[in-house]
Amino acid sequence: MRESELLSHIFKKTPGPTGPVVVGPGDDMAQLKLDEMNLLIGVDQVIAGRHVDISRVGPELVGRKAVCRCLSDVAAMGAKPIAGVVTVAIPTGDEMINDAWIKKLSDSVHQVGQSFGCPIVGGDIAVLPEKGQALVLTVTVLATSNDGRVLLRSGAEVGDGVYVTGELGRTLEADGHGHHLHFVPRIELSLRLKKVLGEDLHAMIDLSDGLARDAGHIAKASGVGIELEGAMIPRRNGASLHEAIADGEDYELCFTSSSAVNEVDGIPVARVGTVVDAARCHPCRVIVNDGATSQCVDDLGYEHISRAPNAD
Amino acid sequence: MRESELLSHIFKKTPGPTGPVVVGPGDDMAQLKLDEMNLLIGVDQVIAGRHVDISRVGPELVGRKAVCRCLSDVAAMGAKPIAGVVTVAIPTGDEMINDAWIKKLSDSVHQVGQSFGCPIVGGDIAVLPEKGQALVLTVTVLATSNDGRVLLRSGAEVGDGVYVTGELGRTLEADGHGHHLHFVPRIELSLRLKKVLGEDLHAMIDLSDGLARDAGHIAKASGVGIELEGAMIPRRNGASLHEAIADGEDYELCFTSSSAVNEVDGIPVARVGTVVDAARCHPCRVIVNDGATSQCVDDLGYEHISRAPNAD
Repeated sequence: MRESELLSHIFKKTPGPTGPVVVGPGDDMAQLKLDEMNLLIGVDQVIAGRHVDISRVGPELVGRKAVCRCLSDVAAMGAKPIAGVVTVAIPTGDEMINDAWIKKLSDSVHQVGQSFGCPIVGGDIAVLPEKGQALVLTVTVLATSNDGRVLLRSGAEVGDGVYVTGELGRTLEADGHGHHLHFVPRIELSLRLKKVLGEDLHAMIDLSDGLARDAGHIAKASGVGIELEGAMIPRRNGASLHEAIADGEDYELCFTSSSAVNEVDGIPVARVGTVVDAARCHPCRVIVNDGATSQCVDDLGYEHISRAPNAD
Repeated sequence: MRESELLSHIFKKTPGPTGPVVVGPGDDMAQLKLDEMNLLIGVDQVIAGRHVDISRVGPELVGRKAVCRCLSDVAAMGAKPIAGVVTVAIPTGDEMINDAWIKKLSDSVHQVGQSFGCPIVGGDIAVLPEKGQALVLTVTVLATSNDGRVLLRSGAEVGDGVYVTGELGRTLEADGHGHHLHFVPRIELSLRLKKVLGEDLHAMIDLSDGLARDAGHIAKASGVGIELEGAMIPRRNGASLHEAIADGEDYELCFTSSSAVNEVDGIPVARVGTVVDAARCHPCRVIVNDGATSQCVDDLGYEHISRAPNAD
């Protein structure tokens, strides 16, 4: 099964916005309106062996990644975190995952949350029943938008520029470390972009699946196409174009705007493409122009639950 | 490591109530105050092989249990659910856990949430990296107290009666089924108890670890002792006294009150003991009187992460 197929099954079963639910499944976070307050909720998981190699990465960075992944979704909505809760399913019969390891993980989750203004206020711990089972860490974060405005994937307009912050690709190094463990969730930058661009800032997502796939999420939600210019995509550590658009785990912001911007508070922002009419890309959603060639890149990047050996 | 030891490590590292945090880790849910709104957040997990035997229990009941466990915490706070988010870590290479199984699980989570006024508004799905790893399902629930009052574990007063709803024990049958899969979270009952008992209702918890241990949570949080009367404890299906206080997964309410109550809306409520001065039970927190004998039962019941073979 592909993630997109299961998600579309889930979305079909989910009632539309009703009662307090303003935005349901399908964006970076869900949005609720309660007593005139805009509340956002999102959840993410870190699974050992899938999102992090715990034989080579210590508990501090595992905890850090779990919290920061979730905070990157907060940034993607143009919001500020309020608080979080955490669960951990702890491996059994694993010498490395001893009491000290678990305490370090727990301390890290709390410290990292606190450092981003997101105190961890509760959680659940349980031990896995059998040896060899994967540590699963989940973080749920509550957030709010101070100005009442939330940035969805669905706001892109034909003619908008497509922008990314920072550099993309080569997020995972051969030793299991790298940018995917050390990124700073772009919360402050996102709030600044809202101020600088105002109403011209139309749609936003954080880059977790890779630019190709995440731009596709904006394109699908907005009913548009996106044309990326390969030469304009900023690359980390000599990444190839393919790595820059398909590696995933950049945790940078990708947004569309009708005003130009090339830097905010010292952080580079690059225009990497244009929002176009859906028909122009059809049957693709996202195409990348690279020199003389144009490539459909809808299927690049990280598909979380594909079971096909080449696509995961 | 014992759960209590890890939790006490976590609680020590958690800053006290600050900013929007009214109640941090240690109760059934955490409480936040935002724009005069009382918001509760709690999370729970269901792990295959630990909380449910998926070789004998279908995806509908697995999903139901995950949602209802979390809603039982909502009931324990005297609150109403608002919305929830869900994560699932899906086993790989398991013939039974195919696409149809996952869709049924997802449908169940949505339907059960909806039926208790708790729409599932978001989530995350990922596949476990290796064969034989356990399905982990987490549910986070947001809730609020309509009358602004939240029932904590810490409110018990010396002289209060200790009460339980329904019957206790024998929650897991030999075939893997039983009450632990079919219980109805006591949300309505909890709201009715708040109305009926008013300010005389002092402390509340839901029975997930067993009466002995959960009464101990109230005793510890309130700085009191609890004396249970074995003969007064209502037992399910001929459960022994030991089963009634130690089996866990009753998901009934246990509360302390200075007024008597024996039934609400047709659901039996039984007085099972008395809140006493901590010194009276010392060095225990909870004792059970059974005929001529008195027994310290602090260590009975379900300790989530103990690794000692006899205590889990």
